[in-house]
Amino acid sequence: MPETSDRKDDHIRIIEEEDVETTGAGFADIDLVHEALPEVHRDEIETTADLFGHELAAPIVIESMTGGHPNTTKLNRTLAEAAERTNVAMGVGSQRAGLELDDEAVLESYTVVRDAAPNAFLYGNVGAAQLLEYGVDDVEEAVAMIDADAMAIHLNFLQEAVQPEGDVDARGCLAAIERVADELSVPVIVKETGNGMSRETATRLADAGVDAVDVAGQGGTTWSGIESHRAAAVGAQRQEAIGRLFRAWGVPTAVSTLEAATVHDCVIASGGVRSGLDIAKAIALGARAGGLAKPFLGPAGQGVDEVVDLIETLRLELRTAMFVTGSASLSELRDTEYVVLGRTNEYIDQRRR
Amino acid sequence: MPETSDRKDDHIRIIEEEDVETTGAGFADIDLVHEALPEVHRDEIETTADLFGHELAAPIVIESMTGGHPNTTKLNRTLAEAAERTNVAMGVGSQRAGLELDDEAVLESYTVVRDAAPNAFLYGNVGAAQLLEYGVDDVEEAVAMIDADAMAIHLNFLQEAVQPEGDVDARGCLAAIERVADELSVPVIVKETGNGMSRETATRLADAGVDAVDVAGQGGTTWSGIESHRAAAVGAQRQEAIGRLFRAWGVPTAVSTLEAATVHDCVIASGGVRSGLDIAKAIALGARAGGLAKPFLGPAGQGVDEVVDLIETLRLELRTAMFVTGSASLSELRDTEYVVLGRTNEYIDQRRR
Amino acid sequence: MPETSDRKDDHIRIIEEEDVETTGAGFADIDLVHEALPEVHRDEIETTADLFGHELAAPIVIESMTGGHPNTTKLNRTLAEAAERTNVAMGVGSQRAGLELDDEAVLESYTVVRDAAPNAFLYGNVGAAQLLEYGVDDVEEAVAMIDADAMAIHLNFLQEAVQPEGDVDARGCLAAIERVADELSVPVIVKETGNGMSRETATRLADAGVDAVDVAGQGGTTWSGIESHRAAAVGAQRQEAIGRLFRAWGVPTAVSTLEAATVHDCVIASGGVRSGLDIAKAIALGARAGGLAKPFLGPAGQGVDEVVDLIETLRLELRTAMFVTGSASLSELRDTEYVVLGRTNEYIDQRRR
Amino acid sequence: MPETSDRKDDHIRIIEEEDVETTGAGFADIDLVHEALPEVHRDEIETTADLFGHELAAPIVIESMTGGHPNTTKLNRTLAEAAERTNVAMGVGSQRAGLELDDEAVLESYTVVRDAAPNAFLYGNVGAAQLLEYGVDDVEEAVAMIDADAMAIHLNFLQEAVQPEGDVDARGCLAAIERVADELSVPVIVKETGNGMSRETATRLADAGVDAVDVAGQGGTTWSGIESHRAAAVGAQRQEAIGRLFRAWGVPTAVSTLEAATVHDCVIASGGVRSGLDIAKAIALGARAGGLAKPFLGPAGQGVDEVVDLIETLRLELRTAMFVTGSASLSELRDTEYVVLGRTNEYIDQRRR
Ligand SMILES: Cc1cc2nc3c(=O)[nH]c(=O)nc-3n(C[C@H](O)[C@H](O)[C@@H](O)COP(=O)(O)O)c2cc1C
Ligand SMILES: Cc1cc2nc3c(=O)[nH]c(=O)nc-3n(C[C@H](O)[C@H](O)[C@@H](O)COP(=O)(O)O)c2cc1C
Ligand SMILES: Cc1cc2nc3c(=O)[nH]c(=O)nc-3n(C[C@H](O)[C@H](O)[C@@H](O)COP(=O)(O)O)c2cc1C
Ligand SMILES: Cc1cc2nc3c(=O)[nH]c(=O)nc-3n(C[C@H](O)[C@H](O)[C@@H](O)COP(=O)(O)O)c2cc1C
Repeated sequence: MPETSDRKDDHIRIIEEEDVETTGAGFADIDLVHEALPEVHRDEIETTADLFGHELAAPIVIESMTGGHPNTTKLNRTLAEAAERTNVAMGVGSQRAGLELDDEAVLESYTVVRDAAPNAFLYGNVGAAQLLEYGVDDVEEAVAMIDADAMAIHLNFLQEAVQPEGDVDARGCLAAIERVADELSVPVIVKETGNGMSRETATRLADAGVDAVDVAGQGGTTWSGIESHRAAAVGAQRQEAIGRLFRAWGVPTAVSTLEAATVHDCVIASGGVRSGLDIAKAIALGARAGGLAKPFLGPAGQGVDEVVDLIETLRLELRTAMFVTGSASLSELRDTEYVVLGRTNEYIDQRRR
Repeated sequence: MPETSDRKDDHIRIIEEEDVETTGAGFADIDLVHEALPEVHRDEIETTADLFGHELAAPIVIESMTGGHPNTTKLNRTLAEAAERTNVAMGVGSQRAGLELDDEAVLESYTVVRDAAPNAFLYGNVGAAQLLEYGVDDVEEAVAMIDADAMAIHLNFLQEAVQPEGDVDARGCLAAIERVADELSVPVIVKETGNGMSRETATRLADAGVDAVDVAGQGGTTWSGIESHRAAAVGAQRQEAIGRLFRAWGVPTAVSTLEAATVHDCVIASGGVRSGLDIAKAIALGARAGGLAKPFLGPAGQGVDEVVDLIETLRLELRTAMFVTGSASLSELRDTEYVVLGRTNEYIDQRRR
Repeated sequence: MPETSDRKDDHIRIIEEEDVETTGAGFADIDLVHEALPEVHRDEIETTADLFGHELAAPIVIESMTGGHPNTTKLNRTLAEAAERTNVAMGVGSQRAGLELDDEAVLESYTVVRDAAPNAFLYGNVGAAQLLEYGVDDVEEAVAMIDADAMAIHLNFLQEAVQPEGDVDARGCLAAIERVADELSVPVIVKETGNGMSRETATRLADAGVDAVDVAGQGGTTWSGIESHRAAAVGAQRQEAIGRLFRAWGVPTAVSTLEAATVHDCVIASGGVRSGLDIAKAIALGARAGGLAKPFLGPAGQGVDEVVDLIETLRLELRTAMFVTGSASLSELRDTEYVVLGRTNEYIDQRRR
Repeated sequence: MPETSDRKDDHIRIIEEEDVETTGAGFADIDLVHEALPEVHRDEIETTADLFGHELAAPIVIESMTGGHPNTTKLNRTLAEAAERTNVAMGVGSQRAGLELDDEAVLESYTVVRDAAPNAFLYGNVGAAQLLEYGVDDVEEAVAMIDADAMAIHLNFLQEAVQPEGDVDARGCLAAIERVADELSVPVIVKETGNGMSRETATRLADAGVDAVDVAGQGGTTWSGIESHRAAAVGAQRQEAIGRLFRAWGVPTAVSTLEAATVHDCVIASGGVRSGLDIAKAIALGARAGGLAKPFLGPAGQGVDEVVDLIETLRLELRTAMFVTGSASLSELRDTEYVVLGRTNEYIDQRRR
């Protein structure tokens, strides 16, 4: 969602140095019920997932993160090479800089992903607010930029509201999304960026014809928290306070997944997903796949092998969860028994009223 | 509620030096549901609130605090100037000293507010127990003293019960309130002072014809706590113990707001309100406005700009909450979705039985 | 329940030196609902309580504690003088030593209470297990010993089970209690000693014709804990372990009070009652009076004034609770609104199934 | 479940040195309701339990632990002698080494138990996965090895999944179990090893004709935790991470006991059982007996007297619980009143939906 190069740099530095993760995604409140007699062979369990006709090796998404500055090119190449090698999905960060700046090096920070991952499922990223300025052809340009398999439109109005310079006009976004969903050549995923989606929002998006939602719920990376630190750095005290106040605002990821899945066939669960077990829980709640952003940053700075290793670990964790719930495939995992405890149970209960 | 000058001084010193705030107002247990697609422009959101025909710029009340001693004149002037500049409501502390002492300097500590705020919504303050001695004309004198837009009648029987010298005769108060509500030239607000109001009490007040209630619930400044410290200072051990025992007595503000709003059209939520987000939650629970006392003390000691800054921060926090719930006006905020968790949920549940 | 002099000494020393109080009586989970407009005069509130035709100044009981050794005479005299001065009820500890030992000094440790308190409500104490050996005439002897207004029969089988030398034959107790209840010249109170009574036990006691029960529930002094320390001192490791394991065994006092009150007209709530506010809560739950043991030990060691002071503090705390719930009498307090939260709410809920 | 000698050694060392117990078995959430008037003699309470026609002195099981290496012979002899002296049941660890290795000393590590305990109830142990390779005659060989009174078939697929070299093919186990249950000369107990059994799994096992289940639920020794340590020692990082992630996976023992007892007549509760009070609670939940593994390791290293002492302590703890619930026999204990609080209550509630 951040667009200018310098801002992106600020963000990544803050994410690496400060505590900008919240708790409360809700996965800790969910217990999948153990199957002592699974009657499957762990290594023959199918973890493949279909994403708009593309068969992923595992329901794992490297969430939209970066691009837009020459020094992000390497990160994106590393992530893309790992996505290619493991056959998981990957998004790029907001393409605004790529669309608006006329700079080869900036452009390369995006195009590098398709070069590095000719076969992987890659999806682009634009902000909902930008759609008010863009025509569908501009979005097609973003698609073309990385030969995208899908396009993510992000919603990040809380982050904008914390930024002193933020774009806080949210009017007309739904209509613009509807138009893009109707006309774009590739499927459209609408995603939040850390505050989640309620059933009501998800329903409006389903009515607008979007192909999938990525809930990006509360419980992981907090953009209000990040912007609060950025505001502090420039002495913008009121923004700093507001960022702190809304640090953990939003629908918890687990709740959001459950709610979105009542109206969408294809839900990506992200926001505080931290293991293959969390992915398994998300799928039991109705998700198609689980996405992670922050946990990929560290490995991406180290190299392709480290990213691949994380993906393989996530996959084995997921596979283990499938094994001990006796789920031979993701569709069986979706039907597995689970219990919801604590705050998440209370939250869901309240939302049912 | 304190009346004599010296006592007022004691109180303010204790509030500044000791821990006399409780937790448990309940706002932390309430989550407004995020709207990822708000479809409003944050800066065009209407935060205006109607209070007895006066349009406030924001549903913010500087709660009844001080007056009655020459050295409170400055505090009241500062608060009133800020109220004038920001167009929010403000109350003065108990006017008993102003009515009973024949002292120009004491009087000025009240009258200063109208001088400093010719246009702001200002309301007076008398104790329910005093009504037994006063006629309606005495209350009119209090109105005239500050050219009040409304008159608050405070209930503080727990505080009285902790004071060695307290007035613990509560008989006849309701009838006296009814008479004043019937005859006074301005609207009557009945307010607690930190222990809240149950639905039952609120109902009796509605039946008595009062125009509004300010719940002043448990969860913020604790007068039992303050009086306990005062008792300790004079060696009144039994009173000290009782003040401590009843430190967190009362209906939590969030619960009280919800209950009062079932029988009153105009409810002010106060007691532990600490941010514009708390105000937003209070409004979602049914309040007309949110009030704060203690948080204004520090800034009021510094200057008008500091008080204005706090009000502007509260307002932007409220506006941000409205933005991310997609509420274009307070009436839309009142209808926004929320969940109630934890102890507050349990409390409400029990009260429904 | 302890009978021999030395054992009593051990007990009191352990109670003074070790941590032998548990939490969980449940009063902290109960909130009486504040009445902001009480419409009573605090100092005209009636705290008088009827106990078998005797009007107590307040529903306060100094629970059965001591007697049986010459060096307890002073404690009992002090407590009795305070009971006389304040007109509250008082029990003596187990009278077994008085009945079985032929020793003037031992006897005096009991008889002193009537000497010191000619008018107070005093009640005797025998163990249920002793009833198997005693005839009703022996119990009458215990009555006569202190000119008792009532006789308490204590149940302490868990304590006995932890004692290496304990009496663990509980057979026939109910029949023996029924006989005594039927024939004794004074009312019979059956009391536990820190583990509470379920509704089922209370019902059996009601059917047996006892006049009152004292729940003596879990949450205050723990006799398993005390006996565990005593066992440790003599190297009885298994007993020590068992005492620790059952340290917090029993029906919490608040739950027990609620349950017993469904079948008994006269219920005394004890076990972790620590303030006049706890007494108020107990009465709202259905108790006739609240009793305390351990909190009286310290003051009793100091002097009559200290005990009177504690009683007066308890009474003012109770009166304050009555004031701020608008209860002019104990019968109004019994009907006051309250909420039950947390573990106690869960416990009650489970017991309803 | 571990089979080779060296692995067994690793396991025992890790169990002794590392923290490989989880919490959450659920017994702490269960309160047996106190009976103040038990009407039984503690020392005449019947703690005898029937296990397939064998009358145990108490419903206590020394769970399957060891054998398979000459240096475990002493442990097994000690445990068996204690089982003989106290007349409780005892299992041996996996007999795979005994069946597959042709080594007298290894064999002796199993056969020693029958030598030391000619009359005790002893049961054998094989892994469900081994049944795929074994015929029923191989299992009969295991029975003969210790003249077993019953045979336990263990399920430990999570442990296998954490081991780098684990056997993760669970297909066909149920059919194999059904065959053995049908044909074996002694009763068959299917047991988990620390992750519990759901009602669904228990039902499938009941349908397969097994004679009893041992739930071995979550809340005690964690094999994922143990294997995680073992993986760490050999630098297998991914396995280490997975072991940690699934450290507390499984159905809590209390829940599992309740669920299994709805479909099985004979349920052994194990996994975090740590006292005779836990055993009493398990029986109230529907178990036939309670089993412990880890708590026996320490005493077994010391000597027979220490093991006997632990058993006698457990028995007296159980007896005490029976006494204060007024249960003269285990069948009365099974019908005693209890409440379920906290997380366990929530878990059960969720499972009922
Ligand atoms: C470093 C970083 C940069 C991000 N940049 C974008 C972005 O440009 N566009 C977007 O839609 N989301 C962006 N996100 C949000 C994630 O895509 C995702 O929505 C969020 O839920 C991931 O949460 P997690 O970090 O807790 O796993 C970013 C997240 C991180 C950590
Ligand atoms: C310093 C101070 C003085 C107060 N004086 C009065 C008063 O004179 N009359 C009155 O009605 N309430 C008085 N109050 C109570 C507040 O008006 C209000 O009822 C209370 O709920 C504010 O809670 P808060 O401090 O937690 O925001 C006072 C509060 C404070 C902190
Ligand atoms: C020092 C001491 C001695 C006691 N002795 C007796 C006794 O002899 N007989 C009896 O019935 N209860 C005895 N009790 C128990 C109390 O009477 C009462 O049942 C218990 O609930 C009081 O709890 P508390 O100490 O938490 O207030 C004794 C309690 C204490 C603290
Ligand atoms: C040292 C040790 C070794 C064990 N070995 C076996 C085994 O060989 N076969 C088996 O079925 N269970 C084995 N178990 C698991 C226990 O039999 C039992 O299932 C488990 O629930 C005991 O839990 P606890 O240690 O928390 O009491 C072992 C447990 C321990 C502590």
